[in-house]
Amino acid sequence: MTERVYNFSAGPAVFPLSVLEQVQRDMLALPGVGASILEISHRSGAFTTIIEDAEKNLRKLLSIPDDYAVLFVQGGSRLQFSMVPMNLLGRGQVADYIITGSWGNYALAEAKKVGETRVAWDGKSTNYDRVPDRAELNLEPQAAYVHYTDNETIQGVEFQSEPQVGDVPLVCDVSSNFLSRPIDVRKYGLIYACAQKNAGPAGVTVVIIRKDLLKRSDPNLPGYLNYDIHAQNNSLWNTPPTFAIYVLKLITEWLLNDIGGLEAMHRRNADKARLLYEEVDRSSGFYAGHAKPQCRSLMNVTFRLPSDELTTQFVAEAKKRNLTELKGHRSVGGIRASIYNAMPLAGVEALRDFMAEFRRKNQK
Amino acid sequence: MTERVYNFSAGPAVFPLSVLEQVQRDMLALPGVGASILEISHRSGAFTTIIEDAEKNLRKLLSIPDDYAVLFVQGGSRLQFSMVPMNLLGRGQVADYIITGSWGNYALAEAKKVGETRVAWDGKSTNYDRVPDRAELNLEPQAAYVHYTDNETIQGVEFQSEPQVGDVPLVCDVSSNFLSRPIDVRKYGLIYACAQKNAGPAGVTVVIIRKDLLKRSDPNLPGYLNYDIHAQNNSLWNTPPTFAIYVLKLITEWLLNDIGGLEAMHRRNADKARLLYEEVDRSSGFYAGHAKPQCRSLMNVTFRLPSDELTTQFVAEAKKRNLTELKGHRSVGGIRASIYNAMPLAGVEALRDFMAEFRRKNQK
Repeated sequence: MTERVYNFSAGPAVFPLSVLEQVQRDMLALPGVGASILEISHRSGAFTTIIEDAEKNLRKLLSIPDDYAVLFVQGGSRLQFSMVPMNLLGRGQVADYIITGSWGNYALAEAKKVGETRVAWDGKSTNYDRVPDRAELNLEPQAAYVHYTDNETIQGVEFQSEPQVGDVPLVCDVSSNFLSRPIDVRKYGLIYACAQKNAGPAGVTVVIIRKDLLKRSDPNLPGYLNYDIHAQNNSLWNTPPTFAIYVLKLITEWLLNDIGGLEAMHRRNADKARLLYEEVDRSSGFYAGHAKPQCRSLMNVTFRLPSDELTTQFVAEAKKRNLTELKGHRSVGGIRASIYNAMPLAGVEALRDFMAEFRRKNQK
Repeated sequence: MTERVYNFSAGPAVFPLSVLEQVQRDMLALPGVGASILEISHRSGAFTTIIEDAEKNLRKLLSIPDDYAVLFVQGGSRLQFSMVPMNLLGRGQVADYIITGSWGNYALAEAKKVGETRVAWDGKSTNYDRVPDRAELNLEPQAAYVHYTDNETIQGVEFQSEPQVGDVPLVCDVSSNFLSRPIDVRKYGLIYACAQKNAGPAGVTVVIIRKDLLKRSDPNLPGYLNYDIHAQNNSLWNTPPTFAIYVLKLITEWLLNDIGGLEAMHRRNADKARLLYEEVDRSSGFYAGHAKPQCRSLMNVTFRLPSDELTTQFVAEAKKRNLTELKGHRSVGGIRASIYNAMPLAGVEALRDFMAEFRRKNQK
């Protein structure tokens, strides 16, 4: 058995071991097919079943209504930052952006290149440590859409429920908490998520879009950037990232069959996150949590140590215990423990125990 | 041992078995890393080595000069059809397109959405069975670039050498014959190839661009569509398709170490294709080759049988012998045998023998 570490990477990130074992088992030839998932045509019967199952499983996990299309595209959230305004933001219209961290700012920067934007709220003044209250949102009632980032991976700030925006279509980047808890898809116009946190390998992005919004896609858009073209062709307008979709399908099976759905997944995630935040809270400030308690992410636990030296030491000593990738994002520093769906409780417990021990040794 | 078929799919397509075995062996944990290639951060040391090796190997195989950048992007050739004109075709300029089959037409259709285009040659009048002579090209000397498709996967028509276009940057879609033979990169301004024929799994596209052309990329382009941004960030502006790049690296190692480079690969490919074209040529018209002999593709061997019934029968009987995916593209019919780099000689011999036997039984 190959030794495996507890990998706290923010993405690409930890996988369920059983899914990796399935990928490994069938790598040379899918059962009954005689060729590897890497080799089969995207138009073969075998792949048709895979992509249909992937969609079916997502619809089941998230209770996606029939009047929403599910698309599998490439280019990550970065390409969605452009595709959303290119498809949904018409001439003479304006789009509202709620900014709760780095990714919201990146999304806004791309939208500005495409059309007119407004900032409905920006958490910069407190260094992106919280999400806005309803009363703080300065929304334009005629906006083409309102965009927000459900979980800011870098800051570790997560919405506990979707913002109230009335009849304006709500567009959400759920990249880093997709499939980590139930969401009410009906409240959204469009949801997108790159897979490499909770849903699969890097290279596939899921877009869930209310079908009436597909009418906004201008036929003169570059073909690959047109949601309506992907929807009309069941994500097979061009060769989709077949392997990534296959693995996403295996992950959704794991969520349905091994975990028991997103309510159960959410409970597990809450239990795991609590262990780390409790350690932060009882540390008398040795571990200084970044996010305000009511906005703490269940996916990315961010905190700082008293000095850069201690931070470096923390990361190095953790690594010796096979607790890896704990360094905070280079733009904010500190520590970030990403504990996505597939991070086992034992990994979080090991980190919690290490945190306690490190504090005992180093707290003055 | 799992039974494997001879898979003549046009892409995604057959892999070297040794590469699949390597992927399988290390799926749970890369040696010395303790985590799967699916799980590691694109900014980790392990992945940095992988993407650097992938580039280094490509540079070695194709003798790519230092004044060319190598990019790994998502979106397939379809997205390149848009990115090429978005980056290279300025206002008031025109781009020339040489059309030798379906993919050239798709590329042209996308370019028309972006700017002004000309058709320098179009093989439609003979149903795309050949490439143009030099004298037939109607080129605009001031064009922003000339685009052509080196191998038309659907028609099975391949250029034997690049068209002569003077000082205008030559842009080439080499998707379906990339790494199948040496090319002189210096003759090109930009080369692009989706990986799923000869270079890896679906989900990564290689772009090789002369660095001076990067200056043409407008900073107001959507970020993901800007070649210059990808070049400045070594393809890590966003999370790249890490697994696909890893497998591409393994394929390039196989080409360098097991095959011995692209000259050797080209000889093998020519030998394999010859077996099938010889069978076509001695069939007294039972197998009617689509491409003119001097333009025959070494990658996609296309021919027709005397009737649709015989075509269906051919595909079905071949499948019983584990020779799969031989049906021609739905837009042209007939038979297409894709015999990319990784198709072993034994697979081609088995198909050749089946073709001979099928003809003996069914030729009147």
